[in-house]
Amino acid sequence: MTALETDIGTGTNHFAELAADLLGPKGWTAIADDLEPWLTDWRGRYSGKAIGLASPASTQEVSALVKLCARFNVPIVPQGGNSGMAGGATPDASGSAILLSLRRMNTIRELDATAGLAVCDAGVILQTFHEAAEDAGLRFPLTLGGKGSATIGGLISTNAGGTQVLRHGTMRAQVLGLEAVLADGSVFDALTALKKDNRGFDLKQLLIGSEGTLGIVTGATLRLLPAPKARATAWVGLKSILDARALLRRVDRALGDTLEGFEVVPDHCLDSVLAHLPAARSPLNERHAWHALIECVGVDGDDTELREKLEGALADAAEDGLLSDAVIASNERQADDFWTLRDSISAAERALGPAMQHDISVPVEKMPEFILAASPAVEKEFPGTRAVAFGHLGDGNVHFHILAPKGAVPGEWEEGQGKQVSARVYDLVTQWGGSISAEHGIGQMKVGELGRLGDPVALAIMRAVKQALDPQGLLNPGKLVPMAVE
Amino acid sequence: MTALETDIGTGTNHFAELAADLLGPKGWTAIADDLEPWLTDWRGRYSGKAIGLASPASTQEVSALVKLCARFNVPIVPQGGNSGMAGGATPDASGSAILLSLRRMNTIRELDATAGLAVCDAGVILQTFHEAAEDAGLRFPLTLGGKGSATIGGLISTNAGGTQVLRHGTMRAQVLGLEAVLADGSVFDALTALKKDNRGFDLKQLLIGSEGTLGIVTGATLRLLPAPKARATAWVGLKSILDARALLRRVDRALGDTLEGFEVVPDHCLDSVLAHLPAARSPLNERHAWHALIECVGVDGDDTELREKLEGALADAAEDGLLSDAVIASNERQADDFWTLRDSISAAERALGPAMQHDISVPVEKMPEFILAASPAVEKEFPGTRAVAFGHLGDGNVHFHILAPKGAVPGEWEEGQGKQVSARVYDLVTQWGGSISAEHGIGQMKVGELGRLGDPVALAIMRAVKQALDPQGLLNPGKLVPMAVE
Repeated sequence: MTALETDIGTGTNHFAELAADLLGPKGWTAIADDLEPWLTDWRGRYSGKAIGLASPASTQEVSALVKLCARFNVPIVPQGGNSGMAGGATPDASGSAILLSLRRMNTIRELDATAGLAVCDAGVILQTFHEAAEDAGLRFPLTLGGKGSATIGGLISTNAGGTQVLRHGTMRAQVLGLEAVLADGSVFDALTALKKDNRGFDLKQLLIGSEGTLGIVTGATLRLLPAPKARATAWVGLKSILDARALLRRVDRALGDTLEGFEVVPDHCLDSVLAHLPAARSPLNERHAWHALIECVGVDGDDTELREKLEGALADAAEDGLLSDAVIASNERQADDFWTLRDSISAAERALGPAMQHDISVPVEKMPEFILAASPAVEKEFPGTRAVAFGHLGDGNVHFHILAPKGAVPGEWEEGQGKQVSARVYDLVTQWGGSISAEHGIGQMKVGELGRLGDPVALAIMRAVKQALDPQGLLNPGKLVPMAVE
Repeated sequence: MTALETDIGTGTNHFAELAADLLGPKGWTAIADDLEPWLTDWRGRYSGKAIGLASPASTQEVSALVKLCARFNVPIVPQGGNSGMAGGATPDASGSAILLSLRRMNTIRELDATAGLAVCDAGVILQTFHEAAEDAGLRFPLTLGGKGSATIGGLISTNAGGTQVLRHGTMRAQVLGLEAVLADGSVFDALTALKKDNRGFDLKQLLIGSEGTLGIVTGATLRLLPAPKARATAWVGLKSILDARALLRRVDRALGDTLEGFEVVPDHCLDSVLAHLPAARSPLNERHAWHALIECVGVDGDDTELREKLEGALADAAEDGLLSDAVIASNERQADDFWTLRDSISAAERALGPAMQHDISVPVEKMPEFILAASPAVEKEFPGTRAVAFGHLGDGNVHFHILAPKGAVPGEWEEGQGKQVSARVYDLVTQWGGSISAEHGIGQMKVGELGRLGDPVALAIMRAVKQALDPQGLLNPGKLVPMAVE
């Protein structure tokens, strides 16, 4: 089994046999029932087929498998927790690719509490990693809704965000070292964490956020921070989104390095959530056009101290007319209740009917003006729709959802007018210098729109780099990198 | 003048005429006296020749010039302040290249104090930028010895470090947006600062630290921080470098986000400095094997408050036997005196005779053990030499200097035994998982050693990326990217 000619002659069956030999019964299956759960993304939007499901147990096995794929020209779709937002881990319908699951590689190889870092396999689940950090008296400062399924490798490949980016940055900021298998099966080992290293292009940065199109992340060295000791959470009522920005600046200055979250919620979203969760209560008695959820976390001092500091900043802001009313959570439970309101918005909006969801960013300073300009623009162009914007104002990143007109048929509207709505939203975002994907990635969902709206110079570099590192085009084809227009 | 054939036929003279037409008398010169100051690096180690010196006034002129160079196959050596440490901005001896100076592009295009950012031309000098930030009540948190000549573009292209990396990161962490001219003359415009943007490969990260080999940085958006309000500086006497690490951990925990600098100085270096600067005094009365210079900077509170906090942490450490003696600067002038001692080490060492200087890093936690193992190893292999390590312990980055044996002939020793010494140091660093260039870059000085010691997988990616983005090989040839061994 050495000559390439022989291999090609025998085709896919031969490849599957060799993959089974290489990976053993735990590492390879082509049984339809085994594959089925992983062939559709968790939101049920994308579905595909695959030759088989490979679940290698080590970096060496990933390397050997990729070499085998290169020999047989078999495309590879890497998959972590299958909880991505853009269909980036779902194969296409051709059935020519294999699914490469990293889930069996789930060992925390090393956790050095003194140095404040851990070396993880790509398949370690975020929540498991959080718990390991906590057990060591530390904290991994990135979290998001899918933490029970999302893997370290997936989070790195999509440069995931979450609710603590304001202070701690996206996944990119957490990665101190990286290990990946490249398209030719070679292992790029840059796991050693060096605070300073100027030995050429930063290839680690190139792989982060590349959605498995340049290499398959197999391991990473991640930073750990001291465990938080104090928390203060406030719910604030505001007259306008412009006041929200002014308040953000104020709180940021007053609370400096403790400010972790600044989320905005329009009254419409709060209404939907209160209707959706019968047990939930509005934190404030009066109604307000906008709400801000503010969270501060300190590594020294205590809750009381931090709450007083936040209270002082809010009192100052109230005096200057920047906010209408505010309440500071008096205990963890109340703080969690505030966050439940915020985290239930998507589910509550879904109950209202069809909607197009857009994970967008513009420069932080411009977001209020963008919301004020884009919302009526879209609503006017598509009568009966309603624009709601909520989320990470502190990151210049909101979830900009357009709710369908009343009576729109679920499933039908999204495929028809909904697509026009999205194209319009992305046009507006691009005109404002923003991003059509702030944190969810491109995957297969937005690859067409990136091709349409992306800077041609940037797209040309992306294609050249992709071609250089994956000349056979086998790594997660059809994702992230738009095809060149002939 | 449209057909490539015609251009090649007329050669270099024709190219120079067209360059002169394009850039005007301020933008182009081929006069030897004009070129001369820029053909040798500031330390006088590297010297070369060039067709001419181009000084474009705008990104558009850079773009047009690069297109012209591509047409005539003329290599380009970009240059900022000509104060690099690795010969990265000096052309080779062939005389086939042009020097492309960014110094005429020295406008701060925008400074938005509220948003905390500025958009700069590549040729803005660091000190000028510091002053502009200060005038706006802000601070640009990166500084280094060459700030009077170093340009923003050069600092980005070399991912410069300095003395505040411990808290604020290298240049990479300061860059929010980037503009660069690519090998085909196209302009990559990613100046808009987006806190979150997952639209594909992070090409900005690829260009940072690429030393002009993938593109010519023409502008950048940089972050600005609130101006510091409080400063506390301490000079500490220590028994060992191991105690220095323990103290670093302790101070880091106690002073959290205010710790900006943690520099170590062996007694030998302090001695040399005191001999070199007659007016200087040792901050402590007793002698100590090692010294640490600790600097804390706060954006709220005052000096007294911060000094007390630092004093408390040092008192605790003294009780646990981690330090022998310490003094906190009682005013700005005393703090500056401490820094003068630190900043004079290189000059003082030079007065002692020839030495080989190595800007190296290993994982922060391993640096004390590295110093303890590598120093005697080198001294034993090269009898009469002396190893001194000083600098940024908090970054895992020291300047590891090997002083020549007594009687060594300056100029001769460096080219003979000195080279063997350096190779041995780089071998050791590589064995320890470290970097042969922590902050100075590779340039032409270390490109051979990177080729010898770099990870072959990483080198292969670098070459593939270089080939993809600069297929003619015209951007700063011979720098950073080691040639493939045939």
